[in-house]
Amino acid sequence: MATGTLYGVGVGPGDPELMTLKAARLIGSCPIVAYFAKRGRQGHARRIVDGHIGPASRELRLEYPFTTEVPVDDPHYPKELSAFYSRSAEEVAAELDAGRDVAVICEGDPFFYGSFMYLFDRLSQVYPTEIVPGISGMHGCWAQAKTPICHGDDVFSVLPGTMDGALLAERLKGSDAAVIMKIGRNLEKVRTALAEAGLLDRAIYVEQGTMEGERVEMLADLAHAPAPYFSLILVPGRQGLR
Amino acid sequence: MATGTLYGVGVGPGDPELMTLKAARLIGSCPIVAYFAKRGRQGHARRIVDGHIGPASRELRLEYPFTTEVPVDDPHYPKELSAFYSRSAEEVAAELDAGRDVAVICEGDPFFYGSFMYLFDRLSQVYPTEIVPGISGMHGCWAQAKTPICHGDDVFSVLPGTMDGALLAERLKGSDAAVIMKIGRNLEKVRTALAEAGLLDRAIYVEQGTMEGERVEMLADLAHAPAPYFSLILVPGRQGLR
Repeated sequence: MATGTLYGVGVGPGDPELMTLKAARLIGSCPIVAYFAKRGRQGHARRIVDGHIGPASRELRLEYPFTTEVPVDDPHYPKELSAFYSRSAEEVAAELDAGRDVAVICEGDPFFYGSFMYLFDRLSQVYPTEIVPGISGMHGCWAQAKTPICHGDDVFSVLPGTMDGALLAERLKGSDAAVIMKIGRNLEKVRTALAEAGLLDRAIYVEQGTMEGERVEMLADLAHAPAPYFSLILVPGRQGLR
Repeated sequence: MATGTLYGVGVGPGDPELMTLKAARLIGSCPIVAYFAKRGRQGHARRIVDGHIGPASRELRLEYPFTTEVPVDDPHYPKELSAFYSRSAEEVAAELDAGRDVAVICEGDPFFYGSFMYLFDRLSQVYPTEIVPGISGMHGCWAQAKTPICHGDDVFSVLPGTMDGALLAERLKGSDAAVIMKIGRNLEKVRTALAEAGLLDRAIYVEQGTMEGERVEMLADLAHAPAPYFSLILVPGRQGLR
Protein backbone atom coordinates (compact mmCIF):
# COMPACT_ATOMS: atom_id res chain seq x y z
CA MET A 1 0.00 0.00 0.00
CA ALA A 2 1.25 3.48 -0.84
CA THR A 3 1.91 5.82 2.08
CA GLY A 4 0.09 9.12 2.42
CA THR A 5 1.60 12.49 1.52
CA LEU A 6 2.73 14.97 4.15
CA TYR A 7 1.56 18.52 3.40
CA GLY A 8 3.00 21.49 5.29
CA VAL A 9 0.22 24.01 4.80
CA GLY A 10 0.63 27.70 5.61
CA VAL A 11 -2.68 29.25 6.64
CA GLY A 12 -1.58 32.88 6.75
CA PRO A 13 -1.31 35.62 9.38
CA GLY A 14 -4.68 35.37 11.11
CA ASP A 15 -7.52 36.58 8.88
CA PRO A 16 -9.01 33.29 7.55
CA GLU A 17 -9.59 34.91 4.14
CA LEU A 18 -5.81 35.26 3.80
CA MET A 19 -5.31 31.53 3.37
CA THR A 20 -4.61 30.40 -0.19
CA LEU A 21 -6.99 28.51 -2.45
CA LYS A 22 -4.59 25.57 -2.25
CA ALA A 23 -4.56 25.60 1.55
CA ALA A 24 -8.37 25.71 1.64
CA ARG A 25 -8.57 22.82 -0.83
CA LEU A 26 -6.16 20.61 1.13
CA ILE A 27 -7.72 21.42 4.52
CA GLY A 28 -11.11 20.55 3.08
CA SER A 29 -9.98 17.28 1.51
CA CYS A 30 -7.13 15.71 3.52
CA PRO A 31 -8.33 12.88 5.79
CA ILE A 32 -6.07 14.14 8.61
CA VAL A 33 -5.59 17.77 9.64
CA ALA A 34 -2.80 18.08 12.22
CA TYR A 35 -1.61 21.08 14.23
CA PHE A 36 0.49 22.13 17.20
CA ALA A 37 -1.31 23.74 20.12
CA LYS A 38 -0.60 24.74 23.68
CA ARG A 39 -2.43 23.01 26.51
CA GLY A 40 -5.79 24.67 27.20
CA ARG A 41 -5.71 26.62 23.93
CA GLN A 42 -7.42 25.94 20.62
CA GLY A 43 -4.20 26.58 18.72
CA HIS A 44 -3.68 29.58 16.49
CA ALA A 45 -3.55 27.70 13.17
CA ARG A 46 -6.61 25.65 14.14
CA ARG A 47 -8.59 28.80 14.91
CA ILE A 48 -7.72 30.27 11.50
CA VAL A 49 -9.09 27.26 9.58
CA ASP A 50 -12.32 27.01 11.56
CA GLY A 51 -15.10 26.03 9.18
CA HIS A 52 -12.69 24.87 6.45
CA ILE A 53 -11.92 21.36 7.73
CA GLY A 54 -13.74 18.76 5.62
CA PRO A 55 -16.62 16.76 7.16
CA ALA A 56 -14.76 13.50 6.59
CA SER A 57 -11.49 14.77 8.08
CA ARG A 58 -10.10 13.81 11.45
CA GLU A 59 -8.15 16.31 13.55
CA LEU A 60 -4.77 15.37 15.02
CA ARG A 61 -3.90 17.73 17.84
CA LEU A 62 -0.21 17.81 18.79
CA GLU A 63 -0.06 19.34 22.24
CA TYR A 64 3.05 21.02 23.60
CA PRO A 65 4.21 19.54 26.92
CA PHE A 66 4.44 22.97 28.61
CA THR A 67 1.50 24.83 30.14
CA THR A 68 3.41 28.10 30.21
CA GLU A 69 6.43 29.22 28.24
CA VAL A 70 9.53 27.51 29.54
CA PRO A 71 12.49 29.88 29.04
CA VAL A 72 14.65 28.78 26.14
CA ASP A 73 17.72 29.02 28.35
CA ASP A 74 16.31 26.40 30.72
CA PRO A 75 18.45 23.27 30.18
CA HIS A 76 15.32 21.09 30.04
CA TYR A 77 13.77 23.11 27.26
CA PRO A 78 15.53 21.87 24.11
CA LYS A 79 15.54 18.24 25.27
CA GLU A 80 11.84 18.13 26.16
CA LEU A 81 10.86 20.00 23.04
CA SER A 82 12.91 17.73 20.83
CA ALA A 83 11.28 14.66 22.41
CA PHE A 84 7.87 16.24 21.84
CA TYR A 85 8.60 16.84 18.15
CA SER A 86 9.81 13.25 17.78
CA ARG A 87 6.59 11.90 19.38
CA SER A 88 4.55 14.21 17.14
CA ALA A 89 6.41 12.97 14.06
CA GLU A 90 5.59 9.39 15.08
CA GLU A 91 1.90 10.22 15.36
CA VAL A 92 1.91 11.80 11.92
CA ALA A 93 3.96 8.90 10.50
CA ALA A 94 1.35 6.39 11.75
CA GLU A 95 -1.30 8.14 9.64
CA LEU A 96 0.98 8.33 6.60
CA ASP A 97 1.85 4.63 6.99
CA ALA A 98 -1.87 3.85 6.94
CA GLY A 99 -2.07 5.56 3.54
CA ARG A 100 -3.73 8.74 4.75
CA ASP A 101 -2.61 12.19 3.59
CA VAL A 102 -1.85 14.57 6.45
CA ALA A 103 -2.19 18.36 6.20
CA VAL A 104 -0.14 19.95 8.97
CA ILE A 105 -1.55 23.47 9.25
CA CYS A 106 0.84 26.25 10.28
CA GLU A 107 0.20 29.91 11.04
CA GLY A 108 2.01 32.13 8.55
CA ASP A 109 4.40 30.24 6.28
CA PRO A 110 5.62 26.74 7.25
CA PHE A 111 9.25 27.49 6.36
CA PHE A 112 9.52 31.06 7.66
CA TYR A 113 10.27 30.83 11.40
CA GLY A 114 7.79 27.96 11.67
CA SER A 115 7.82 24.89 13.90
CA PHE A 116 6.70 22.71 10.97
CA MET A 117 10.35 22.26 10.11
CA TYR A 118 10.75 19.92 13.09
CA LEU A 119 8.27 17.53 11.47
CA PHE A 120 9.77 18.16 8.05
CA ASP A 121 13.26 17.28 9.28
CA ARG A 122 11.99 14.02 10.76
CA LEU A 123 9.64 12.89 7.98
CA SER A 124 10.48 14.39 4.59
CA GLN A 125 13.20 11.87 3.79
CA VAL A 126 10.75 9.01 4.32
CA TYR A 127 7.38 10.24 3.02
CA PRO A 128 6.32 12.22 -0.06
CA THR A 129 6.20 15.81 1.16
CA GLU A 130 4.78 19.01 -0.28
CA ILE A 131 4.87 22.55 1.06
CA VAL A 132 2.12 25.11 0.55
CA PRO A 133 3.55 28.55 1.32
CA GLY A 134 1.46 30.94 3.39
CA ILE A 135 1.35 34.66 3.99
CA SER A 136 3.62 35.35 6.92
CA GLY A 137 2.65 37.67 9.75
CA MET A 138 4.85 40.52 8.57
CA HIS A 139 3.11 40.68 5.17
CA GLY A 140 -0.24 40.89 6.96
CA CYS A 141 1.08 43.64 9.23
CA TRP A 142 2.45 45.94 6.55
CA ALA A 143 -0.77 45.53 4.53
CA GLN A 144 -2.84 46.55 7.56
CA ALA A 145 -0.48 49.42 8.39
CA LYS A 146 -0.87 50.56 4.74
CA THR A 147 2.89 50.87 4.56
CA PRO A 148 4.88 49.81 1.49
CA ILE A 149 7.87 48.11 3.09
CA CYS A 150 10.50 47.93 0.38
CA HIS A 151 11.21 48.80 -3.16
CA GLY A 152 13.79 48.64 -5.98
CA ASP A 153 17.23 47.72 -4.68
CA ASP A 154 16.39 48.04 -0.97
CA VAL A 155 18.17 45.73 1.45
CA PHE A 156 15.50 44.24 3.70
CA SER A 157 16.22 42.53 7.04
CA VAL A 158 14.20 40.54 9.53
CA LEU A 159 15.78 40.91 12.97
CA PRO A 160 14.82 39.34 16.30
CA GLY A 161 14.24 41.72 19.21
CA THR A 162 16.25 39.27 21.32
CA MET A 163 19.51 40.44 19.68
CA ASP A 164 22.10 42.45 21.54
CA GLY A 165 21.08 46.13 21.30
CA ALA A 166 24.32 47.40 19.76
CA LEU A 167 24.30 44.62 17.17
CA LEU A 168 20.65 45.32 16.39
CA ALA A 169 21.44 49.01 15.78
CA GLU A 170 24.34 48.01 13.52
CA ARG A 171 22.18 45.65 11.45
CA LEU A 172 19.48 48.32 11.17
CA LYS A 173 22.05 50.80 9.86
CA GLY A 174 23.04 48.26 7.18
CA SER A 175 19.42 47.84 5.98
CA ASP A 176 17.08 50.08 4.02
CA ALA A 177 13.96 48.42 5.39
CA ALA A 178 13.45 46.03 8.28
CA VAL A 179 11.03 44.09 10.41
CA ILE A 180 11.81 43.46 14.07
CA MET A 181 10.10 40.47 15.63
CA LYS A 182 9.93 39.08 19.17
CA ILE A 183 9.27 42.46 20.71
CA GLY A 184 7.74 41.47 24.09
CA ARG A 185 10.08 42.38 26.91
CA ASN A 186 12.61 43.70 24.38
CA LEU A 187 10.53 46.76 23.47
CA GLU A 188 12.69 49.41 25.17
CA LYS A 189 15.94 47.87 23.93
CA VAL A 190 14.54 47.82 20.40
CA ARG A 191 13.36 51.41 20.67
CA THR A 192 16.83 52.51 21.80
CA ALA A 193 18.48 50.62 18.92
CA LEU A 194 16.11 52.23 16.40
CA ALA A 195 16.89 55.69 17.81
CA GLU A 196 20.61 54.97 17.60
CA ALA A 197 20.20 53.95 13.96
CA GLY A 198 18.24 57.15 13.27
CA LEU A 199 15.12 55.17 12.38
CA LEU A 200 12.78 55.71 15.32
CA ASP A 201 10.68 58.28 13.45
CA ARG A 202 9.87 55.80 10.70
CA ALA A 203 9.14 52.80 12.91
CA ILE A 204 5.58 51.48 13.10
CA TYR A 205 4.33 49.14 15.81
CA VAL A 206 1.71 46.52 14.81
CA GLU A 207 -0.08 44.22 17.24
CA GLN A 208 -2.49 41.41 16.26
CA GLY A 209 -2.13 42.28 12.55
CA THR A 210 -5.17 41.15 10.45
CA MET A 211 -6.81 39.83 13.66
CA GLU A 212 -9.33 41.01 16.22
CA GLY A 213 -7.73 43.55 18.54
CA GLU A 214 -5.42 44.85 15.82
CA ARG A 215 -3.47 47.96 16.74
CA VAL A 216 -1.22 50.07 14.50
CA GLU A 217 0.76 52.97 15.98
CA MET A 218 3.90 54.94 15.34
CA LEU A 219 6.45 53.42 17.72
CA ALA A 220 7.50 56.84 18.95
CA ASP A 221 3.94 57.39 20.26
CA LEU A 222 3.66 53.99 21.96
CA ALA A 223 3.51 53.96 25.76
CA HIS A 224 6.19 51.94 27.55
CA ALA A 225 4.65 48.52 28.06
CA PRO A 226 5.52 44.92 27.34
CA ALA A 227 4.26 44.08 23.85
CA PRO A 228 2.35 40.82 23.37
CA TYR A 229 3.44 37.81 21.33
CA PHE A 230 1.76 38.81 18.05
CA SER A 231 3.50 42.14 17.67
CA LEU A 232 6.26 43.43 15.45
CA ILE A 233 7.87 46.63 14.30
CA LEU A 234 8.03 47.75 10.69
CA VAL A 235 10.77 50.04 9.40
CA PRO A 236 9.74 51.01 5.85
CA GLY A 237 12.45 51.62 3.27
CA ARG A 238 13.43 54.97 1.86
CA GLN A 239 10.64 55.05 -0.71
CA GLY A 240 8.10 53.52 1.58
CA LEU A 241 7.76 56.30 4.11
CA ARG A 242 4.27 57.04 5.28
CA MET B 1 -21.92 59.89 -4.97
CA ALA B 2 -19.39 57.88 -2.99
CA THR B 3 -16.11 57.07 -4.72
CA GLY B 4 -14.98 53.51 -5.26
CA THR B 5 -12.39 51.75 -3.13
CA LEU B 6 -8.87 51.09 -4.37
CA TYR B 7 -7.70 47.53 -3.62
CA GLY B 8 -4.06 46.55 -4.00
CA VAL B 9 -4.39 42.81 -4.43
CA GLY B 10 -1.43 40.44 -4.25
CA VAL B 11 -1.97 37.37 -6.43
CA GLY B 12 1.03 35.35 -5.31
CA PRO B 13 4.18 33.96 -6.91
CA GLY B 14 2.81 32.33 -10.06
CA ASP B 15 0.74 29.22 -9.28
CA PRO B 16 -2.87 30.51 -9.47
CA GLU B 17 -3.83 28.28 -6.54
CA LEU B 18 -1.47 30.34 -4.37
CA MET B 19 -3.71 33.39 -4.44
CA THR B 20 -5.69 34.01 -1.28
CA LEU B 21 -9.43 33.50 -0.82
CA LYS B 22 -9.73 37.27 -0.40
CA ALA B 23 -7.87 37.98 -3.64
CA ALA B 24 -10.08 35.52 -5.51
CA ARG B 25 -13.22 37.10 -4.05
CA LEU B 26 -12.19 40.65 -4.98
CA ILE B 27 -11.01 39.70 -8.48
CA GLY B 28 -14.33 37.95 -9.03
CA SER B 29 -16.45 40.84 -7.75
CA CYS B 30 -14.73 44.18 -8.43
CA PRO B 31 -16.15 45.99 -11.47
CA ILE B 32 -12.63 47.00 -12.57
CA VAL B 33 -9.55 44.75 -12.54
CA ALA B 34 -6.42 46.77 -13.35
CA TYR B 35 -2.83 45.63 -13.95
CA PHE B 36 0.52 46.73 -15.29
CA ALA B 37 1.82 44.93 -18.36
CA LYS B 38 4.59 45.29 -20.87
CA ARG B 39 3.75 45.96 -24.50
CA GLY B 40 3.06 42.75 -26.39
CA ARG B 41 2.77 40.69 -23.19
CA GLN B 42 -0.28 39.50 -21.31
CA GLY B 43 1.17 40.69 -18.01
CA HIS B 44 2.32 38.35 -15.28
CA ALA B 45 -0.37 39.24 -12.72
CA ARG B 46 -3.06 39.02 -15.41
CA ARG B 47 -1.92 35.54 -16.42
CA ILE B 48 -2.08 34.33 -12.82
CA VAL B 49 -5.73 35.38 -12.38
CA ASP B 50 -6.93 33.90 -15.68
CA GLY B 51 -10.40 32.45 -15.14
CA HIS B 52 -10.97 34.33 -11.87
CA ILE B 53 -12.09 37.69 -13.27
CA GLY B 54 -15.84 38.13 -12.82
CA PRO B 55 -18.13 38.08 -15.91
CA ALA B 56 -19.32 41.62 -15.12
CA SER B 57 -15.79 43.01 -14.59
CA ARG B 58 -13.93 45.23 -17.01
CA GLU B 59 -10.15 44.98 -17.41
CA LEU B 60 -7.99 48.10 -17.22
CA ARG B 61 -4.62 47.39 -18.77
CA LEU B 62 -1.86 49.84 -17.80
CA GLU B 63 0.84 49.42 -20.41
CA TYR B 64 4.46 50.36 -19.76
CA PRO B 65 5.81 52.82 -22.33
CA PHE B 66 8.92 50.71 -23.03
CA THR B 67 9.04 47.72 -25.36
CA THR B 68 12.32 46.48 -23.92
CA GLU B 69 13.94 47.16 -20.57
CA VAL B 70 15.37 50.66 -20.53
CA PRO B 71 18.43 50.64 -18.25
CA VAL B 72 17.66 52.29 -14.91
CA ASP B 73 20.75 54.48 -15.29
CA ASP B 74 19.35 56.00 -18.50
CA PRO B 75 18.43 59.62 -17.58
CA HIS B 76 15.08 59.26 -19.41
CA TYR B 77 14.06 56.24 -17.36
CA PRO B 78 12.84 57.71 -14.04
CA LYS B 79 11.14 60.67 -15.73
CA GLU B 80 9.24 58.59 -18.28
CA LEU B 81 8.32 55.97 -15.72
CA SER B 82 7.08 58.56 -13.27
CA ALA B 83 4.91 60.14 -15.99
CA PHE B 84 3.54 56.68 -16.84
CA TYR B 85 2.60 56.00 -13.20
CA SER B 86 0.90 59.39 -12.99
CA ARG B 87 -1.13 58.68 -16.15
CA SER B 88 -2.01 55.25 -14.78
CA ALA B 89 -3.13 56.77 -11.47
CA GLU B 90 -5.40 59.14 -13.41
CA GLU B 91 -6.99 56.24 -15.29
CA VAL B 92 -7.63 54.42 -12.01
CA ALA B 93 -8.90 57.63 -10.37
CA ALA B 94 -11.46 58.11 -13.15
CA GLU B 95 -13.00 54.73 -12.29
CA LEU B 96 -12.95 55.45 -8.55
CA ASP B 97 -14.57 58.86 -9.17
CA ALA B 98 -17.35 57.09 -11.06
CA GLY B 99 -18.02 55.04 -7.91
CA ARG B 100 -16.45 51.81 -9.16
CA ASP B 101 -14.15 49.71 -6.97
CA VAL B 102 -10.81 48.93 -8.62
CA ALA B 103 -8.75 45.82 -7.85
CA VAL B 104 -5.16 46.42 -8.95
CA ILE B 105 -3.68 42.95 -9.20
CA CYS B 106 0.02 42.54 -8.42
CA GLU B 107 2.30 39.51 -8.70
CA GLY B 108 3.61 38.51 -5.28
CA ASP B 109 2.78 41.02 -2.54
CA PRO B 110 1.80 44.62 -3.44
CA PHE B 111 4.07 46.18 -0.80
CA PHE B 112 7.11 43.90 -1.10
CA TYR B 113 9.20 45.24 -4.00
CA GLY B 114 6.02 45.89 -5.98
CA SER B 115 5.16 48.65 -8.43
CA PHE B 116 1.70 49.04 -6.87
CA MET B 117 3.23 51.53 -4.45
CA TYR B 118 3.44 54.09 -7.27
CA LEU B 119 -0.36 54.04 -7.51
CA PHE B 120 -0.69 53.86 -3.73
CA ASP B 121 1.48 56.97 -3.28
CA ARG B 122 -0.64 58.90 -5.77
CA LEU B 123 -4.11 57.73 -4.72
CA SER B 124 -4.28 56.50 -1.12
CA GLN B 125 -4.58 59.98 0.38
CA VAL B 126 -7.64 60.67 -1.79
CA TYR B 127 -9.53 57.37 -2.05
CA PRO B 128 -10.40 54.64 0.45
CA THR B 129 -7.63 52.08 0.02
CA GLU B 130 -7.17 48.50 1.17
CA ILE B 131 -4.25 46.14 0.73
CA VAL B 132 -4.56 42.38 0.32
CA PRO B 133 -1.16 40.84 1.00
CA GLY B 134 0.05 38.11 -1.35
CA ILE B 135 2.61 35.34 -1.22
CA SER B 136 5.85 36.79 -2.50
CA GLY B 137 8.07 34.98 -4.95
CA MET B 138 10.65 33.99 -2.35
CA HIS B 139 8.05 32.13 -0.25
CA GLY B 140 6.99 30.20 -3.34
CA CYS B 141 10.62 29.39 -4.15
CA TRP B 142 11.61 28.01 -0.75
CA ALA B 143 8.42 25.93 -0.66
CA GLN B 144 9.25 24.41 -4.06
CA ALA B 145 12.91 23.90 -3.08
CA LYS B 146 11.64 22.11 0.06
CA THR B 147 14.03 24.20 2.09
CA PRO B 148 13.12 25.68 5.49
CA ILE B 149 14.65 29.15 5.22
CA CYS B 150 14.84 30.44 8.77
CA HIS B 151 14.12 29.57 12.31
CA GLY B 152 14.24 30.79 15.92
CA ASP B 153 16.41 33.89 16.28
CA ASP B 154 17.85 33.81 12.77
CA VAL B 155 18.67 37.12 11.12
CA PHE B 156 17.18 37.00 7.62
CA SER B 157 18.14 39.34 4.77
CA VAL B 158 16.84 40.04 1.31
CA LEU B 159 19.67 41.40 -0.82
CA PRO B 160 19.70 42.60 -4.42
CA GLY B 161 22.24 41.00 -6.75
CA THR B 162 22.93 44.51 -8.06
CA MET B 163 24.90 45.36 -4.86
CA ASP B 164 28.64 45.82 -4.85
CA GLY B 165 30.22 42.36 -4.44
CA ALA B 166 32.28 43.15 -1.33
CA LEU B 167 29.26 44.76 0.39
CA LEU B 168 27.10 41.79 -0.58
CA ALA B 169 29.60 39.41 1.01
CA GLU B 170 29.67 41.55 4.15
CA ARG B 171 25.86 41.59 4.44
CA LEU B 172 25.76 37.83 3.88
CA LYS B 173 28.27 37.32 6.72
CA GLY B 174 25.97 39.34 9.00
CA SER B 175 22.94 37.16 8.22
CA ASP B 176 21.96 33.63 9.21
CA ALA B 177 19.67 33.18 6.22
CA ALA B 178 19.25 35.19 3.03
CA VAL B 179 17.56 35.53 -0.31
CA ILE B 180 19.38 37.18 -3.20
CA MET B 181 17.20 38.66 -5.91
CA LYS B 182 17.93 40.28 -9.27
CA ILE B 183 20.38 37.60 -10.29
CA GLY B 184 20.46 38.02 -14.09
CA ARG B 185 23.82 39.33 -15.22
CA ASN B 186 24.99 39.44 -11.59
CA LEU B 187 25.19 35.66 -11.24
CA GLU B 188 29.00 35.34 -11.18
CA LYS B 189 29.43 38.31 -8.82
CA VAL B 190 26.83 36.80 -6.48
CA ARG B 191 28.52 33.41 -6.62
CA THR B 192 31.86 34.98 -5.72
CA ALA B 193 30.31 36.90 -2.80
CA LEU B 194 28.67 33.72 -1.49
CA ALA B 195 31.98 31.87 -1.69
CA GLU B 196 33.72 34.71 0.16
CA ALA B 197 31.07 34.54 2.90
CA GLY B 198 31.56 30.76 3.14
CA LEU B 199 27.98 30.12 2.03
CA LEU B 200 28.30 28.79 -1.50
CA ASP B 201 27.74 25.18 -0.43
CA ARG B 202 24.34 26.03 1.07
CA ALA B 203 23.08 28.25 -1.73
CA ILE B 204 20.17 27.03 -3.86
CA TYR B 205 19.22 28.51 -7.21
CA VAL B 206 15.50 28.64 -8.10
CA GLU B 207 14.14 29.71 -11.46
CA GLN B 208 10.41 30.15 -12.30
CA GLY B 209 9.40 29.01 -8.80
CA THR B 210 5.83 27.55 -8.67
CA MET B 211 5.53 28.10 -12.45
CA GLU B 212 5.96 26.12 -15.64
CA GLY B 213 9.65 25.66 -16.37
CA GLU B 214 10.58 25.62 -12.69
CA ARG B 215 14.17 24.68 -11.96
CA VAL B 216 15.79 24.08 -8.56
CA GLU B 217 19.54 23.43 -8.35
CA MET B 218 22.39 23.78 -5.92
CA LEU B 219 24.13 26.98 -7.03
CA ALA B 220 27.53 25.29 -6.93
CA ASP B 221 26.31 22.90 -9.67
CA LEU B 222 24.83 25.59 -11.90
CA ALA B 223 26.54 26.23 -15.22
CA HIS B 224 27.77 29.77 -15.85
CA ALA B 225 24.91 31.47 -17.67
CA PRO B 226 22.82 34.60 -17.31
CA ALA B 227 19.84 33.84 -15.09
CA PRO B 228 16.37 34.98 -16.20
CA TYR B 229 14.17 37.55 -14.48
CA PHE B 230 12.22 35.12 -12.30
CA SER B 231 15.19 33.62 -10.50
CA LEU B 232 16.63 33.97 -7.05
CA ILE B 233 19.09 32.36 -4.68
CA LEU B 234 18.15 30.92 -1.29
CA VAL B 235 20.66 30.69 1.56
CA PRO B 236 18.93 28.66 4.29
CA GLY B 237 19.74 29.41 7.92
CA ARG B 238 21.78 27.25 10.23
CA GLN B 239 18.90 24.96 11.14
CA GLY B 240 17.45 24.89 7.66
CA LEU B 241 20.23 23.05 5.85
CA ARG B 242 19.10 20.52 3.30
